[in-house]
Amino acid sequence: MNPHSHTPPPPLSPVLIAALRERFGERFSQGDSVRLQHGRDESVHVPMLPDGVVFALSTEEVAAAVRLCHQHNTPVIPYGTGSSVEGHVLAPRGGISIDLAGMNRVCHIHAEDLTATVEAGVTRTQLNTELKGTGLFFPIDPGADASLGGMTATRASGTNAVRYGTMKENVLQLTVVLPDGQVIKTGTRARKSSAGYDLTRLFVGSEGTLGIVTELTVRLYPVPEAISAAVCAFLSVDEAVNCVIQTIQLGVPVARVELLDAVTMGAINRFSKTDYPESPTLFFEFHGSEAGVAEQAETVQALAAEHGGQNFQWAARPEDRTRLWQARHDAYFACLQMQPGCRAFPTDVCVPISRLAECIHATNEDIAQVGLKVALFGHVGDGNFHLVVLVDPDSEQDMAAAEWLNERVVGRAIDMEGTCTGEHGIGLGKQKFLVPEHGQGAVDLMRVIKRAIDPANLMNPGKILPPA
Amino acid sequence: MNPHSHTPPPPLSPVLIAALRERFGERFSQGDSVRLQHGRDESVHVPMLPDGVVFALSTEEVAAAVRLCHQHNTPVIPYGTGSSVEGHVLAPRGGISIDLAGMNRVCHIHAEDLTATVEAGVTRTQLNTELKGTGLFFPIDPGADASLGGMTATRASGTNAVRYGTMKENVLQLTVVLPDGQVIKTGTRARKSSAGYDLTRLFVGSEGTLGIVTELTVRLYPVPEAISAAVCAFLSVDEAVNCVIQTIQLGVPVARVELLDAVTMGAINRFSKTDYPESPTLFFEFHGSEAGVAEQAETVQALAAEHGGQNFQWAARPEDRTRLWQARHDAYFACLQMQPGCRAFPTDVCVPISRLAECIHATNEDIAQVGLKVALFGHVGDGNFHLVVLVDPDSEQDMAAAEWLNERVVGRAIDMEGTCTGEHGIGLGKQKFLVPEHGQGAVDLMRVIKRAIDPANLMNPGKILPPA
Repeated sequence: MNPHSHTPPPPLSPVLIAALRERFGERFSQGDSVRLQHGRDESVHVPMLPDGVVFALSTEEVAAAVRLCHQHNTPVIPYGTGSSVEGHVLAPRGGISIDLAGMNRVCHIHAEDLTATVEAGVTRTQLNTELKGTGLFFPIDPGADASLGGMTATRASGTNAVRYGTMKENVLQLTVVLPDGQVIKTGTRARKSSAGYDLTRLFVGSEGTLGIVTELTVRLYPVPEAISAAVCAFLSVDEAVNCVIQTIQLGVPVARVELLDAVTMGAINRFSKTDYPESPTLFFEFHGSEAGVAEQAETVQALAAEHGGQNFQWAARPEDRTRLWQARHDAYFACLQMQPGCRAFPTDVCVPISRLAECIHATNEDIAQVGLKVALFGHVGDGNFHLVVLVDPDSEQDMAAAEWLNERVVGRAIDMEGTCTGEHGIGLGKQKFLVPEHGQGAVDLMRVIKRAIDPANLMNPGKILPPA
Repeated sequence: MNPHSHTPPPPLSPVLIAALRERFGERFSQGDSVRLQHGRDESVHVPMLPDGVVFALSTEEVAAAVRLCHQHNTPVIPYGTGSSVEGHVLAPRGGISIDLAGMNRVCHIHAEDLTATVEAGVTRTQLNTELKGTGLFFPIDPGADASLGGMTATRASGTNAVRYGTMKENVLQLTVVLPDGQVIKTGTRARKSSAGYDLTRLFVGSEGTLGIVTELTVRLYPVPEAISAAVCAFLSVDEAVNCVIQTIQLGVPVARVELLDAVTMGAINRFSKTDYPESPTLFFEFHGSEAGVAEQAETVQALAAEHGGQNFQWAARPEDRTRLWQARHDAYFACLQMQPGCRAFPTDVCVPISRLAECIHATNEDIAQVGLKVALFGHVGDGNFHLVVLVDPDSEQDMAAAEWLNERVVGRAIDMEGTCTGEHGIGLGKQKFLVPEHGQGAVDLMRVIKRAIDPANLMNPGKILPPA
């Protein structure tokens, strides 16, 4: 089956339908609304519906569904919360979407080892809720309340990655259903290992194209003794970014440092009923001992002042911090509200930190050229930033302008030794950038791996790898 | 070619010999001493000699040698400093050893991005020497002054991993020569990426069985404003380990915490002319601001006191710290000197930190049963420890006793959800533990990957994967 063919996928085999009905009863659905819900994501990708959806409740059920699909040469697409933005959950070749949201058990919290083992449908906030009282937390926080399985699949990160790393650094073990329905475990609960190929890291970021992650063990961290957050407005994006670059270069172990441009700040003020200055702004968070946090804050405040930062506003009380970071996490939805009826065309890139100011500066010149509302914000401590381009998806002109902007931004990031996506993944949307970023040889090697593990090309076909 | 076959490898093709001579002149050698030097490592593995050695000076030369070997169906074994201990550089099927020691250029230091790009033959101390004056350092430090290519291949770590991670976390980019001689690049200089399969992590720890790493970009860290080291003796290994467990669980960002048992301390005193108490001892190092280091030290000193730690000895002056850590790094060689004429049978395991005291305690009971001198030390902050078993390699009894001990220790680590090797790798020595640790399905998947990337099985054949 060619995932990139334009011929419509063959209809689902009646034998497969009957088998899935028998195995899953009402937890197998071919209803239109269920299929639509599972055939679109949070971005502008035109929905592509699966032929049916299985609501799985265990690794064994996922394995059973995958085995049946394998027998009937039918594509399988894993589905968590549908919060991805590059078309990851769409079904360009039809097939069965396996919804893992019901697999939401926190299996073990090993507080003494700072690890938790969870089913793939557990979301990041659910895990943190269940960790209350243990003195531990799980730091990785993409904007949406994504599932940990989905976050594994896209190698997600978020605001804390500058201090705590991404899913790549924080997943210790996986349970994976392979394309033929076989179940394997990768990794151990030890903090490190040199025992053979790093299968865990091969599945982290593989977007469901090599197998389906059904369970994972993640690292946890002690809740810091002291936490302090601050907001600081700048006169220009350049000044704000240069403040961040110096912070990182000095090795200040900042826990979070987020840039939000003036457009984003306006959107946040309206959406979250806040009254921040509507100019380029940094949100900071510091973790450590009381003295350590005070020291970090002092250093960063001095750096901010050097770069013209205006009145550092502190949020030391937990409720103020929660409000601040909720506003940050809602930035994507806040931006969407700026233009009722529009959709978001999101993109993200990541560059070496020394190029960040230049990269954002040039991006703003590009933004000035497109006649669209664009918000820029991101995890600048990692060199990672996002654009949310507001478009009418029915307008060819809007879509062409957004696409032009995307290509400019991504092309520049790659030229600067960066990446076409810091944390969203490739999905359908960024395939054309894979060869420019990695070179033909490396992409061919990815294809060799895909073909070896999934020779029938049934696992989320058409994602990551561009048409050969 | 079956790498596990017991038939001797076929002789090197005269056409290949002529081609290598023509291409590399005197940098291709078939001399006995050169072959012996490249066919053995630092441990008890019986040497297995390659048929010839190429001393390569560039990625292009490595690619040329690999291409020639590929054409003549001849195995290729990469060689760095020969400091691995599980038989990684041995040539069970003959072939060509490619010595990368001459590829020792530090290509770029991007101080502003905290990255360095180096050729694979650069050693960790060479890199740190070249970083002097930049305010940055590279933290990963296996005992030997290994090459960064070799450290990549074995997913090495060392004393700083508890704070700074292992090669897995610190390699950003690789240049790799594939089995057919094609050169690819993996990764970017951005701190994170979600762009496709994580080829970088696939090659990190692959021990030369998928390709040869010729160049890499690593992360660097600012030299901390303050560094302080300390030595503290304990009445028992249990007490020492429990002190470490609490340190980690409290989230103290200790930079190094090493356990050395009484045997090791005795060996160190004799080798390094030190006069430490010869009882179980922890070596600590703290990194941070002046105040931060003082605070960490205070916390840990209090924990040590609770566990009966005796007179914390501080080493705040750089030269004292250097002496302390040099003594630690020389532990392996110090142990070898305990019994002149013996060889070391080394092993290492890693377990979840909560099981560490129990694991080491039971290991000591095993050690009491074998009539051999055994030193126990390691990176206990990661749950990782080493045994150095002194043996007469010609004594069947010694070898059998060491093997029994190894199997006991590794079996226990796996039972405790740990790994058969925290940082040494699989090589020849630990293949039999791969299935017990990962399960047949996961090992079969490793085999699928190996076969897809290296279908002729020419890249370091016979390593990592056990006989099918």
